[in-house]
Amino acid sequence: MKKTATRLADGRELIYYDAHGDAVRDAVDQRPLDPITTRSGIRHDPLLGDDVAVASHRQGRTYHPPADECPLCPSRDGRHTEIPAADYDVAVFENRFPSLAGESGRCEVVCFTSDHDASFADLSLERAGLVLDVWADRTVALSRLPAVEQVFCFENRGREIGVTLGHPHGQIYGYPFVTPRTRRMLDSVAAHHERTGRNLFDDVVAGELADGERVVIDGEHWTAFVPYAAHWPYEVHLYPKRRVADLTELDDAARKEFPQVYLELLQRFDRIFGEGEPPTPYIAAWHQAPFTAVNRRDFALHLELFTIRRTSGKLKFLAGSESGMNVFINDVPPEAAAERLREVASK
Amino acid sequence: MKKTATRLADGRELIYYDAHGDAVRDAVDQRPLDPITTRSGIRHDPLLGDDVAVASHRQGRTYHPPADECPLCPSRDGRHTEIPAADYDVAVFENRFPSLAGESGRCEVVCFTSDHDASFADLSLERAGLVLDVWADRTVALSRLPAVEQVFCFENRGREIGVTLGHPHGQIYGYPFVTPRTRRMLDSVAAHHERTGRNLFDDVVAGELADGERVVIDGEHWTAFVPYAAHWPYEVHLYPKRRVADLTELDDAARKEFPQVYLELLQRFDRIFGEGEPPTPYIAAWHQAPFTAVNRRDFALHLELFTIRRTSGKLKFLAGSESGMNVFINDVPPEAAAERLREVASK
Repeated sequence: MKKTATRLADGRELIYYDAHGDAVRDAVDQRPLDPITTRSGIRHDPLLGDDVAVASHRQGRTYHPPADECPLCPSRDGRHTEIPAADYDVAVFENRFPSLAGESGRCEVVCFTSDHDASFADLSLERAGLVLDVWADRTVALSRLPAVEQVFCFENRGREIGVTLGHPHGQIYGYPFVTPRTRRMLDSVAAHHERTGRNLFDDVVAGELADGERVVIDGEHWTAFVPYAAHWPYEVHLYPKRRVADLTELDDAARKEFPQVYLELLQRFDRIFGEGEPPTPYIAAWHQAPFTAVNRRDFALHLELFTIRRTSGKLKFLAGSESGMNVFINDVPPEAAAERLREVASK
Repeated sequence: MKKTATRLADGRELIYYDAHGDAVRDAVDQRPLDPITTRSGIRHDPLLGDDVAVASHRQGRTYHPPADECPLCPSRDGRHTEIPAADYDVAVFENRFPSLAGESGRCEVVCFTSDHDASFADLSLERAGLVLDVWADRTVALSRLPAVEQVFCFENRGREIGVTLGHPHGQIYGYPFVTPRTRRMLDSVAAHHERTGRNLFDDVVAGELADGERVVIDGEHWTAFVPYAAHWPYEVHLYPKRRVADLTELDDAARKEFPQVYLELLQRFDRIFGEGEPPTPYIAAWHQAPFTAVNRRDFALHLELFTIRRTSGKLKFLAGSESGMNVFINDVPPEAAAERLREVASK
């Protein structure tokens, strides 16, 4: 992997990650961009105890541009995009409309390929492996920023989930705090250890493997299953068999097998609802240990992949119960979801 | 208020609430309905510590029926609906497709009016007052069910939020546990009391009134404001000035003023985005004290009203940050939201 760091016209960082060492990335951003003035702030909710990022400058952000105005395509034919090069493998840059910036953290965009019409599921094994290396490298880079306590690599895919740019890309958020969801997992892990002397993540994964009914893929180095109390209609959790705290600690064997397992999962997601359905909208979320949490060594890196589509043409909405009381209603039994995800395996 | 309780053909309860004592509700459900076989179950998530309702029988539920097949209209002209009477004021019945049932709790549907094309905002003051009385009465009724620990009265309005029946109606969930959101509020209240000797709800409301910048309506008996750390683009919290734990404890003065304040808020919500916009989708959620929580007396009944629309034609989606990490990004500063909600006051 070759890494070339540069700056966009408004001072934002842009980093090219190339598979081969001979790539030359010296194109200059020719756009007359004003410097970014971020007006983000973190506000604490005294009753719920969580923090909200208030980001008032984002309302004007790019919204479903036509394909020939895509800001994530390479710059070609006189058209200038966020990526000055005429081609790229993987490119990462600071979001022009960040939810978190400066002392509030950091938001980055990760372009998985220069092919506007591809999906992550279409990537080659080599490219998917490069993206994994990029996520790990960004985790290291963001860990060095004083404002960042936790790094979240994720992909939102599909209009139904609010994605406003069709070009295959993900995002990385560097939060200035431990997120509520991670805090809850760490608390559960601490309580379980106190009670049993064992690691809760290990027990959950071992329990799923022993039961087997919700296992979707049992690889050599990775395990994918629908959790017993899945919140979403189709939801898969993917764990490396050797527990590690974050992406930077994966060993070579796990890194090598990942592309195969993950691409297979994404391809199965697109087959859940049968032929002729539009691509399945999904969120793919990497859960990593925060940097300074007391029991960070007990955290288990894993990916949570889920869709908001509950059946052909129908979405799961977060309405009264979910948004008002944080109680999820799931209309697809996890065992049925797992069975479907095994049925649609690649031949 | 006159209350008439009866049963539907499959044994579900139906209760008519009439404004006037002379209403006769003796129509019989003539439909050949099979008894409901609910297959709901509560599953505990060991890592997140929350409970998910898995309800596998709901996938076939009624989905955007044409207006002349609306199951919430009165039964007329030979067409049989969920409500056998030829007219009604307010009607409550057990949901045919419950997320919670039996030992898992209870789900009810509340029809606000027999007028299919109305909205809550169109109701008369008298009818809105009757609905308030119904919510309070249902809270009492559900508190008597052994399975129910907490009663949640709410309304989802608008297709964008997943509402599948256009007829004006709300729902009531009787949860078999204290919901995670309420638990968090109770914990914050306990910690604040420990630290300061004061009630956190009282301090929050007093703080908003003293500041004033986010106050939307300051009535005689109710206060409505956009909270400092609002999670949603337009979000209003409505508190009675005399703190009470739940709807059953409101005094006459507060009950009398409520319809006026609430209808005004709903009418303003429909004006946020200007003329010619479709009605604003919203969730209106009553937060009440659970029945057996240790510090239930410290809870403050309030209503949280919010929309997922962030600007004309654009929705706020709960994507990676919200659904993956439980961190909300809000693109509308709470002070701007409050200003807009004051601007669109009825003349």
